[in-house]
Amino acid sequence: MVGRRATLRGLTSKQPKVVALGGGMGLSASLTALRRITGDLTAVVTVADDGGSSGRLRDELGVLPPGDLRKALAALCGDDEWGRTWAQVIQHRFESRGELHEHAVGNLLIVALWEQLGDHVQALDLVGKLLGAHGRVLPMSAVPLELRASVRGHDPERPDELSTVRGQATVALTRGEVQEVHLVPSDPPAVPEAVHAVLDADWVVLGPGSWFSSVIPHLLVPELLEALTETKARKVLSLNLAPQPGETDGFSPQRHLEVLARHAPKLTLDVVLADQDAVPDQDSLSEAADQLGGKVELAPVAAAGGASRAESQGGVARHDPELLAAAYDRIFRMHGRIGPWR
Amino acid sequence: MVGRRATLRGLTSKQPKVVALGGGMGLSASLTALRRITGDLTAVVTVADDGGSSGRLRDELGVLPPGDLRKALAALCGDDEWGRTWAQVIQHRFESRGELHEHAVGNLLIVALWEQLGDHVQALDLVGKLLGAHGRVLPMSAVPLELRASVRGHDPERPDELSTVRGQATVALTRGEVQEVHLVPSDPPAVPEAVHAVLDADWVVLGPGSWFSSVIPHLLVPELLEALTETKARKVLSLNLAPQPGETDGFSPQRHLEVLARHAPKLTLDVVLADQDAVPDQDSLSEAADQLGGKVELAPVAAAGGASRAESQGGVARHDPELLAAAYDRIFRMHGRIGPWR
Repeated sequence: MVGRRATLRGLTSKQPKVVALGGGMGLSASLTALRRITGDLTAVVTVADDGGSSGRLRDELGVLPPGDLRKALAALCGDDEWGRTWAQVIQHRFESRGELHEHAVGNLLIVALWEQLGDHVQALDLVGKLLGAHGRVLPMSAVPLELRASVRGHDPERPDELSTVRGQATVALTRGEVQEVHLVPSDPPAVPEAVHAVLDADWVVLGPGSWFSSVIPHLLVPELLEALTETKARKVLSLNLAPQPGETDGFSPQRHLEVLARHAPKLTLDVVLADQDAVPDQDSLSEAADQLGGKVELAPVAAAGGASRAESQGGVARHDPELLAAAYDRIFRMHGRIGPWR
Repeated sequence: MVGRRATLRGLTSKQPKVVALGGGMGLSASLTALRRITGDLTAVVTVADDGGSSGRLRDELGVLPPGDLRKALAALCGDDEWGRTWAQVIQHRFESRGELHEHAVGNLLIVALWEQLGDHVQALDLVGKLLGAHGRVLPMSAVPLELRASVRGHDPERPDELSTVRGQATVALTRGEVQEVHLVPSDPPAVPEAVHAVLDADWVVLGPGSWFSSVIPHLLVPELLEALTETKARKVLSLNLAPQPGETDGFSPQRHLEVLARHAPKLTLDVVLADQDAVPDQDSLSEAADQLGGKVELAPVAAAGGASRAESQGGVARHDPELLAAAYDRIFRMHGRIGPWR
């Protein structure tokens, strides 16, 4: 893939250094697109998950939740049979009526490497090497985090009451309206390699993804937010194709930006990428982007069915990797500082 | 290692094709020695274990017990940092108060590969490739087996009673005297690659190891026994350094041979290798070996402390890999059909 890009762009063109922040499916979508347009890619992954296999591993072994890191690594796996096979293996989940049920093998492998090597980054680099990964995967912090949300109407019988909801898995499923999230501990140390990657990047990509549990948490890690405000990198925020039931039920695209800005008032953006079919009110979105210093770029990025259809189906929209790659590529060319196109 | 041997022996000399049969620590000792003297090495591993992590995986997921296969793979890991690191990782065991406690990560990985690829041999070859393994590791059968033993005095209060003890883990710990073992099912299919390896070998190595649970089971797989009797390969049996509490308490070296012969009357051997300090009565051992068609070779193969000291300490003897390699090398040269020394 790297080789092909080099040919397309000409061997003398520098590839953009891209850092993608996020977690879960959204980050995987971003990485699956970005690997098509750069060979210098770093994922910085949230570590607040407390559900499923990751949650059980946190509880049992006191480790970082490995699930989002595993998914990011799988999304970056090598293009050959070896890379694809190992990606499938780390994604494999046991099914039984016993103690291993639903554990993803990659989670167990990553945790074993952490315990064996005593170094989060070295262990993830080793899994990356195993997969022949097209990029690096880093945790945003080396301590497991708890996500807490201030939610209005978490208890449906008391729709006006503001309550604190603890844990990412619970926040993601709340039927109330999330007002704000914070992390416990509130000032977790960032992983130095992640800070360095952000400072050294040409482009930082935020989103798409679960807004309160995968996109905003990075902004709540003080050293990471500082790096995001200090970096000379351009920043693009990729909006979701539809509101997410639970976390962002009924949120407009501009509301997503407003919520983000409320959590990180100093943060500026250069570009806000949205699917054209997912923006009912372009003017309002442009205004909200303008508040953050950014411009809106509309592009068709939804997989077959489109964003509008996805919304009516309850937010099961997926980004199309090729379309998202094309959109990022165009943005990097139009708004970037490097490359032969300037 | 291969390269070094090629240099030592001269590039024109053919390396012996060696197949090692066994399980557990004994097979690991054998492989650790044999990898030093040949680049063409195949391990055929018992699949009757029902204890520990392997036993739990059998129960929960209905798979072959992976533990002995994992240990054999680790013993064959590549000589570089990559190979050694992954060997340590697959040997890593979780420690917790929860559901993963004592599970070896390599067991989970092997089982996931079996489930993912649907092919025992292909999956083990892939782990071997990951480790840069100096040889191939095969299960002796593709179906999980139960070891049953006829034991005199399993219940210490009824020392003369003959009873059937089920399961390798229980057999290994019996305080009675094991008379005979058999497998359930009694005629398991052999893995074809294992049969082929035995038929195609220059040397087959049996033992050392837990006599009834790691050495004899191979002889109870009909197709494997047939291959062992039909092969033109020379056969060397490596005796243990000391009787094993439980399985072979109080057994003399010649008694080990008699028991083996009783389970496989048609089997012949070419060489019986024993540590010189572990043979109190050389004439009796030679007679027993002669019954099997073999000659006794005595060599110092015990790790520091020696076989005699180990026996007095309750069978914690370990083979020294270098000494065992030297002994096998000498046997292959003296008794073999190939090589520049004939």
